[in-house]
Amino acid sequence: MTFIKKLNAAWAGNHSLLCVGLDPDVTRFPAELAGKPDAILSFCKTIIDATADLACSFKPQIAYFAALRAEDQLEEICRYIKTTYPTIPLVLDAKRGDIGATAEQYAREAFERYEADAVTVNPYMGFDSVAPYMEWKDKGAIVLCRTSNAGGSDLQFLDVGGKPLYQHVAQLVADKWNVNGQCALVVGATFPNELAQVRHIIGDMPLLVPGIGAQGGDIAATVHAGKTNNGNGMMINSSRAILYAKAIGDENYADAARRIALETRDAINQYRN
Amino acid sequence: MTFIKKLNAAWAGNHSLLCVGLDPDVTRFPAELAGKPDAILSFCKTIIDATADLACSFKPQIAYFAALRAEDQLEEICRYIKTTYPTIPLVLDAKRGDIGATAEQYAREAFERYEADAVTVNPYMGFDSVAPYMEWKDKGAIVLCRTSNAGGSDLQFLDVGGKPLYQHVAQLVADKWNVNGQCALVVGATFPNELAQVRHIIGDMPLLVPGIGAQGGDIAATVHAGKTNNGNGMMINSSRAILYAKAIGDENYADAARRIALETRDAINQYRN
Repeated sequence: MTFIKKLNAAWAGNHSLLCVGLDPDVTRFPAELAGKPDAILSFCKTIIDATADLACSFKPQIAYFAALRAEDQLEEICRYIKTTYPTIPLVLDAKRGDIGATAEQYAREAFERYEADAVTVNPYMGFDSVAPYMEWKDKGAIVLCRTSNAGGSDLQFLDVGGKPLYQHVAQLVADKWNVNGQCALVVGATFPNELAQVRHIIGDMPLLVPGIGAQGGDIAATVHAGKTNNGNGMMINSSRAILYAKAIGDENYADAARRIALETRDAINQYRN
Repeated sequence: MTFIKKLNAAWAGNHSLLCVGLDPDVTRFPAELAGKPDAILSFCKTIIDATADLACSFKPQIAYFAALRAEDQLEEICRYIKTTYPTIPLVLDAKRGDIGATAEQYAREAFERYEADAVTVNPYMGFDSVAPYMEWKDKGAIVLCRTSNAGGSDLQFLDVGGKPLYQHVAQLVADKWNVNGQCALVVGATFPNELAQVRHIIGDMPLLVPGIGAQGGDIAATVHAGKTNNGNGMMINSSRAILYAKAIGDENYADAARRIALETRDAINQYRN
């Protein structure tokens, strides 16, 4: 099944636009995991089990694994998602950007090694740096468009022929790069007006939307600005707010993560129709 | 010693502007390495030993290792360079681009795990995606500016206030991002006029210049356009032309790689003064 079809099925099946981001910061892990050799794997599996029926996708951030020589644990996490929750799309957040021959290697990394359904990529080097991912016809390439960090404006807000660069990127992807319907875009939740502009440009193309939860984006405004006419169209990511949710009473960290994921999913659903 | 000082010393010490790129494509390895478990490590060490006195830097491309689950071999290669040839700067070609907290993880990967002296980074997400690398005061951040692939023009050549985006990036880095003199830029050799424009904008900032050798850039035009007044200022990268040099007579692959590296270094040196 293609990434896009799988995503559509997960939106419907779990009645959810919530993407659970897996950014395992060991300095914030619960005390019971301290010093365990496979702490990252154990933590992520617990979070996955606690949230899988609430999520439309899982998104591991590879940097957290790469810094700690933990690619083997990332492989196991990805395999766990693919075998235990095969209907939930797996997005590898790697933001790769390199020329053709090198991009082919990165595509093999994402799609063979980690078995991801889609990978995030950077548009700065142009279409031939994105095309190698789309040689994998059932996979997705999620192109950075407008990012939620303060410095995002440095380049993305530059005026290019009367519109900001991020809108030009959205238009490029919609008109030219999205040949087989394999593309999606990353647009941060922190600027709902800009999210609405992008939605207007791209039609029903899916959006990966970071920036709610710990990053403070407003859920109502985000959903209103970014949804498609049928109330889908987004993977709204939350990572830290779920992973490091503060426990209430005798909750363990899995319970706390599930509670926040449920609240977030339901808050999103309120504004879908 | 800082990356920039180390690079200056290597330019002088080896009388070389040649950066040897380590893009280990196992499908092109010599027959004698076929099926060996540490073939990548063995191949790269041989190339390093054959070219270390001719190079101003080594540049492993992480994608080739990541695709093959060979990060452990990359670690060993990096450690080998750092211990055996401690005067040659080690540039990790990873083209990372992500927000602050994630960029911190990538910086740890590059500078702690692989002990690189500098890493290539993508400017699309703005200054706060580059700043975390510069917290490592003796390390370098080499920012993508103008790339040598055909699709490079898709974004980089867009008009931004009367000049192309890549020149705007060069200006941004020169004026604002290069706070402690830790920055360099990637500018491809395939467009010498553009290389000259960038050199004009950035003063003596170092350039990493891919695109000669297998990619066909002209050495004379490249050196003329990109050198500083004192005949330095560039790491001119060649990867495949050296790594997969065709043997002449009874040369082994190390001899062939050395011959091409020597020819390339000397061809570059012809045009430096």
